[in-house]
Amino acid sequence: MNSPQPKAAKVMPISGFPEYLPSERIVEQRFLDVIRETFELHGFSSVETRSIEPIERLSSQGEDADKEIYAVSRLAGGSDEEARWGLHFDMTVPFARYVLENAGKLAFPFRRYQIQKAWRGERPQEGRYREFTQADIDVVDVGQLSPHFEAEMPLVIADVFSRFPVGEFVIQVNDRKIPNGFYQGIGITDVIGTLRIVDKLDKIGPDKVKALLVESGTTPEQADQCLALAAIRSTDLGFVEQVRALGVEHPLLDEGLESLANVIRTGMAHAPGRLVADLRIARGLDYYTGTVYETQFVGHESWGSFCSGGRYDALASDGRTTYPGVGISIGVTRILGLLVGRGLVTASRSTPAAVLVALTDDDSREQAVSVATALRRRGIACEVAPAAARFGKQIRYAERRGIPYVWFPGAGEAGDEVKDIRSGEQVPASADAWTPPAEDLAPVVTRTDAGS
Amino acid sequence: MNSPQPKAAKVMPISGFPEYLPSERIVEQRFLDVIRETFELHGFSSVETRSIEPIERLSSQGEDADKEIYAVSRLAGGSDEEARWGLHFDMTVPFARYVLENAGKLAFPFRRYQIQKAWRGERPQEGRYREFTQADIDVVDVGQLSPHFEAEMPLVIADVFSRFPVGEFVIQVNDRKIPNGFYQGIGITDVIGTLRIVDKLDKIGPDKVKALLVESGTTPEQADQCLALAAIRSTDLGFVEQVRALGVEHPLLDEGLESLANVIRTGMAHAPGRLVADLRIARGLDYYTGTVYETQFVGHESWGSFCSGGRYDALASDGRTTYPGVGISIGVTRILGLLVGRGLVTASRSTPAAVLVALTDDDSREQAVSVATALRRRGIACEVAPAAARFGKQIRYAERRGIPYVWFPGAGEAGDEVKDIRSGEQVPASADAWTPPAEDLAPVVTRTDAGS
Repeated sequence: MNSPQPKAAKVMPISGFPEYLPSERIVEQRFLDVIRETFELHGFSSVETRSIEPIERLSSQGEDADKEIYAVSRLAGGSDEEARWGLHFDMTVPFARYVLENAGKLAFPFRRYQIQKAWRGERPQEGRYREFTQADIDVVDVGQLSPHFEAEMPLVIADVFSRFPVGEFVIQVNDRKIPNGFYQGIGITDVIGTLRIVDKLDKIGPDKVKALLVESGTTPEQADQCLALAAIRSTDLGFVEQVRALGVEHPLLDEGLESLANVIRTGMAHAPGRLVADLRIARGLDYYTGTVYETQFVGHESWGSFCSGGRYDALASDGRTTYPGVGISIGVTRILGLLVGRGLVTASRSTPAAVLVALTDDDSREQAVSVATALRRRGIACEVAPAAARFGKQIRYAERRGIPYVWFPGAGEAGDEVKDIRSGEQVPASADAWTPPAEDLAPVVTRTDAGS
Repeated sequence: MNSPQPKAAKVMPISGFPEYLPSERIVEQRFLDVIRETFELHGFSSVETRSIEPIERLSSQGEDADKEIYAVSRLAGGSDEEARWGLHFDMTVPFARYVLENAGKLAFPFRRYQIQKAWRGERPQEGRYREFTQADIDVVDVGQLSPHFEAEMPLVIADVFSRFPVGEFVIQVNDRKIPNGFYQGIGITDVIGTLRIVDKLDKIGPDKVKALLVESGTTPEQADQCLALAAIRSTDLGFVEQVRALGVEHPLLDEGLESLANVIRTGMAHAPGRLVADLRIARGLDYYTGTVYETQFVGHESWGSFCSGGRYDALASDGRTTYPGVGISIGVTRILGLLVGRGLVTASRSTPAAVLVALTDDDSREQAVSVATALRRRGIACEVAPAAARFGKQIRYAERRGIPYVWFPGAGEAGDEVKDIRSGEQVPASADAWTPPAEDLAPVVTRTDAGS
């Protein structure tokens, strides 16, 4: 072959593998930057793991995992080569392996964040992707994990989401010990099974949940109690009294109420208005043992949670040592799917460049590059016009990309001039001194009217 | 299953899939930040493509590509499911497809950068990886591409590399039209074959290259001429005269010399001392048609090039329209493999946190979190101590992670105090006003003595 050009017939999107245009990518970058910056302000260290794990490790993660895994094998190995590796489908499984592998070199409690792509072979639909970016934080410790970390997680997430250029959000918090203790207190033995049915409340409603509960063996009275518990919701500590009013007693329930009260109390002090105790939240995964979190955008509840997680007693274990942890994961691609997909957030331009340096004629390129070099030295992103076309054409080049300023070397009596092409105002300027207003330095990412 | 914990037996590295410890990852992040920031200062827009492409497109890229491709298929599909997709092995093939797919929505000439992981199934060795990060820039246009972009690429790369905390580097430049025209001028017909043999110079030396050339059909005199051309190297325009002195005439040679002179002249003006015309550089890939680039670290020549690329007449084509381009790719993982692998560059700490807020007792956590919130609001990364242990133990917690400051709420008569744990100096401070020296705000990434 003689060129990297693909066959035209093959040029098409692949369902579930989203790609962005440059201005949309600037929106994604802004969200990723906010997430990283906030995670780092909270003292989390970055970890990246390889994209693949042995199939056996991925397959052991839940009954439905198999059908979602993408296997990876060398093409040249042909059908003889058994797939030993798969692409990771979350950050938790690889992080657990990373902790075990590097335990001797990490400082515990270990605070890490991890922003990476993951892959799942599920059927694509709005808000569900086969390739997607997740942004996780976890705190993991050796043997014991202090409960205050469960109260810290939603503070970090509240900090991240309040820096996003979007509307209101709410972090819903529950503690698995509350339904666990409550169910045991009213005589239900299949706690996990009951939790899984109650978890369907949002999807199928209370009547069908009650029917399923009774079908699974609870009495109608027990089912009503389960539904009454799941209906409790408060932005303050009111949930404690509401649960008490149901008259159920169990030590695990007491423990759960105290734990959740601590999380909500911390939220009221440091992220007021962001947290709600919502006793309906359960999270499907078996391994959560304490606080669980979900996060919704107000007005977009039908999309479900954009950021979820919880506390687990055993993130990892090597047989001798157990590593408990608490973590939460932001579904970056899901958020972008909503906000970019529906045009709720846009970028002011499609390039980082704030300035286009115009070319007076072909011989003046060296002068133009010197201007660009001086601007870049002071952190001003710019590019030199591709050709010494008419100035009107060069201005349109900038317009098309949303570049706000065009620089004309030697245009004025005193030297260079710079034009704000939105207002048309053109003023004398020196490349060693001129600075655009802060809001023009980088692309601005904002909510559109549709999103306000 | 009840936990995400992997089986202990499976906890091991996979050869060719590098992972870093937190302090090493900070080094990698610094390099990636410098690359992104510099690309954006030069007005390149970010693009990310999906990780997979149809196998047919990947397979058409060169004779040896097949054996390097990782095929991807749904595990649940079993052996019946034919692999239709593969992981991309570079950024060029997916970018070419992206340009064709979005041509109507992009503004040409289109300047894009792309920093992503890629995968190759090759045998791992020092400096070669199966999973690796590349950072590419390309300028692509419709129909024609102005030659000045070939001179611009190495300026961007010189800007990136001179911001790295490493030693000297040199960007070697050639123009494929020079050997092409020269070979034709001395009567060699198999230009590509000759180029491929001469490309082995670094590996096997001039004697073996001459033998191979003669074996391939050249006369000993032709072979000597080829070697004489490949030996030419100059940091200024001297190479033109040296080539002329060999007495060979061909229109393509003239074109190539003029083109390379233009690139070197631009480099002398805007990146003095960084570029060298090196007529040995050829680049293996067939599709380069003009300028080609390689980049070496001085003192680490045996590692070969860390950043390579060139000009191609047809990055992509849909049969009607052809998109010529010029691009260059930084092998980020290769650079880190050298610098981190050999301990030549290190980070001053393993966490972004500049401050550890100490806990006086368990009841003072709320006060400590308030201090942390105030510091973060002013961009100071910090964390609160995990437990109200003895202060000595809390200081050791900071020490172990390289956190330079420990904050003691209410420790002094006037209020809070902060201690620089390196010097031991402790001073009164307010969380609303205190700022660490700029060099302590973020981890410092520096060359070690071994690397100086």
